[in-house]
Order: sequence, then structure tokens, then C-alpha cells
Amino acid sequence: MKDIKRFEKQMAFIREIDKEKLIKRQNYITDCETRENDADHAWHMAIMTLLLSEYSNTDIDVLKTISMILIHDLVEVYAGDTYAYDEEGKKSQAEREAQAADKLYGLLPEDQGKYLRSLWDEFEEQKTPEAMFARTMDCFQPLILNDATDGRAWKEHDVRRSWVLNRNRNTHAGSEEIWEYARDNLIEPNVRKGNIIDDSNEQ
Amino acid sequence: MKDIKRFEKQMAFIREIDKEKLIKRQNYITDCETRENDADHAWHMAIMTLLLSEYSNTDIDVLKTISMILIHDLVEVYAGDTYAYDEEGKKSQAEREAQAADKLYGLLPEDQGKYLRSLWDEFEEQKTPEAMFARTMDCFQPLILNDATDGRAWKEHDVRRSWVLNRNRNTHAGSEEIWEYARDNLIEPNVRKGNIIDDSNEQ
Repeated sequence: MKDIKRFEKQMAFIREIDKEKLIKRQNYITDCETRENDADHAWHMAIMTLLLSEYSNTDIDVLKTISMILIHDLVEVYAGDTYAYDEEGKKSQAEREAQAADKLYGLLPEDQGKYLRSLWDEFEEQKTPEAMFARTMDCFQPLILNDATDGRAWKEHDVRRSWVLNRNRNTHAGSEEIWEYARDNLIEPNVRKGNIIDDSNEQ
Repeated sequence: MKDIKRFEKQMAFIREIDKEKLIKRQNYITDCETRENDADHAWHMAIMTLLLSEYSNTDIDVLKTISMILIHDLVEVYAGDTYAYDEEGKKSQAEREAQAADKLYGLLPEDQGKYLRSLWDEFEEQKTPEAMFARTMDCFQPLILNDATDGRAWKEHDVRRSWVLNRNRNTHAGSEEIWEYARDNLIEPNVRKGNIIDDSNEQ
């Protein structure tokens, strides 16, 4: 090992991110019993990107998008998972996650820490085609799992149609085709089944 | 959605591979209590590849290597996990996994099924720099976890030094530097601590 100090920084980061496997999300995987963890979720989104990048509104750099996806939840190692419909938790989320990013990416050699941090910032800022497609995957993947588990997590949290539509307000920005499929095949049928509370008359 | 039949094949595959999150490996993650699942393992290896490809003996195509890594254990959805030191299970492993690959990749549109199957075949054949680096990650990642958990899985299975060296006989083929680090910092110290049984006098 020519530069052992560099390698040991990389190793410290690699050991630390192992904790992401312990961070449970609210939704269930397709056995309908096991809650998904953050690493599962990122892995699933990465393979989905390999298969579905052809539906991106704009051509994307697939390696960059997958890299962004692999690391997009790493800050939760320190900041914890904030459920998509936890309005209280979301108030402090940005600050908690920025502090976590400083700490976590600071473990790496400076060049790699800066690069991964810039990828995460890009994801959060949602201005590039890669960031928009990654967000589309981040919203589409739990819709697939919720639909496949008869809406278990939706029902446990009394999730309302307006919440799902608000959460997915930018899903179309990465892929119009995927958004239309999601709306017509995953969201609206679950409203009709009662898995998502229909509040469309309350708006 | 212009070609709904194509998309539904992709969706069937995406739903099916969710099962990989249920396939438990023998080793523990760094909390020393939770057994890792196959999706966790692939996600960890993919991020490691982003960070460590600079140590590959030969320049590699990082997207191809990460794609290979993300899918390398998918056949276990049908074939189950075969522990690295399960000599009986390994006798039927190749046949079980080839049948699983036919079934699983057959869910996809033909072009994508062929591509992912070719990536998996390439990984299994171990002839390209990408396949060799992916194998290096596949062997190095559990060494990190075993070392970080005071060898819990090694101790549970009475793992011997010769088994670990045999399992890692080609780890150097992807990266000499990573192999030397692994041998000197992860394997031999655990032999000295008794976490791996020292059978070097029995050879």
C-alpha cells in the first residue's frame, strides 16, 4: 500500500457507512413483514436506474446517477431517517443532515470527500438531469413496494392522497413516462382500494 | 408509456429482485448482532468500488464493475446463499445458480436480460479486469466486517486460516495492494487473536 494514510481514511469511511444497513425505513419489502433498510433501498434504486434510465426526460450520465443514489441517504447514519410524511421531523431535517454530511464526508481523503459531498449537494439541489432522475427513483421505488404490500405502510400512517401527490410533485421532472405510470398504476388504484385515504373532496 | 409491455417486464424483474433483501449471509454487520443481507452486501461493495477502484491492478470501467456488483448475487433469490466455507453446498451451486439465472433474467426484455446475464457470466468466469476487481471486493468486504465484529462469523463456523487463504487465493488478481492490506491487517491479526483457527502447522 503506497499511501497507507489515504487508505486508512477510506477504510474508516467504509466501516462507518456500514451503519446505514441498520436504518429502517417506514415501508415494507415484498414479504409484507420486513421493514426495508436504507442500504436495501439504495441498492434497489441503483439497479432500477440501470434498467430505467432509458425513460429519463433528458439523457443522463448513468454512473454519476448511480453514484448519487448509492450515497443519497448516507447522512442518515448520523441524522436518522425522516419519514416522507413526518412534517415535524422535516423542519430540522436540512440542518441535521448538513451537519451529518460534514462529519461523514470528513472521514474520507479530501478529494473523495469533496466529490461525494458535491454529489449529495447536487441531489439535494435538484437542478441537474441526474439529480432529477435520482429523485424520481427515490419516489418511485417506495410506491412499488407500497403497492406490492397492499399499502401496509400507507395504512399504518393514514396516508392521504394529497400527501402522496405532494411528495411526488417532482417525480415527473426526471421522467414523465414513469410518473404517468406511477400515478395511473400505483397511486390511483390504491386510492380506489382505500389503501390511501381519498381526500380529493377536501382540497 | 410508449411500450407498456417492455415496461411491465422491467417492473416484474424489479419486484422480483426485492427478495434479495431477505437473503441472509453468514457474516454480521458492525453492530455485531445483525446478519447482513445480500442487498446490503452488494450496496457496500458498490460504494467501495467507487472509492477503491484506484487500487485496481488494471484500469477498470467503473460503471460496468458496479453494475456487475449490484447484480452478482441476484441468482440467490432462487438458488439461496451458499456460504463460502460450505463444501457440500458448493458442489451443486453452479447448476442451481445457472437455472436461477435463466429464470430471473428471463423476466426482463430480451436485450436487458441478455446484458445482465452476460455481466453475471463475466463475473463468474473471472477473466476481465472488471470481474477480477469485483471478486476482490466480494472477498475484501466480508473480511472488513469479520474483523470489525471480532470474528464472530469465523468463530461460529470454526473457520481455519487455510480456508480463508484459499477463499482469497485470487483476491490479489484484482488488486495486489488491497490483498496485501487484507492479509496483513485483517487476516493474520485475527489468526493471532484466535478468531481464525491457525492450521498452518497442519499443512
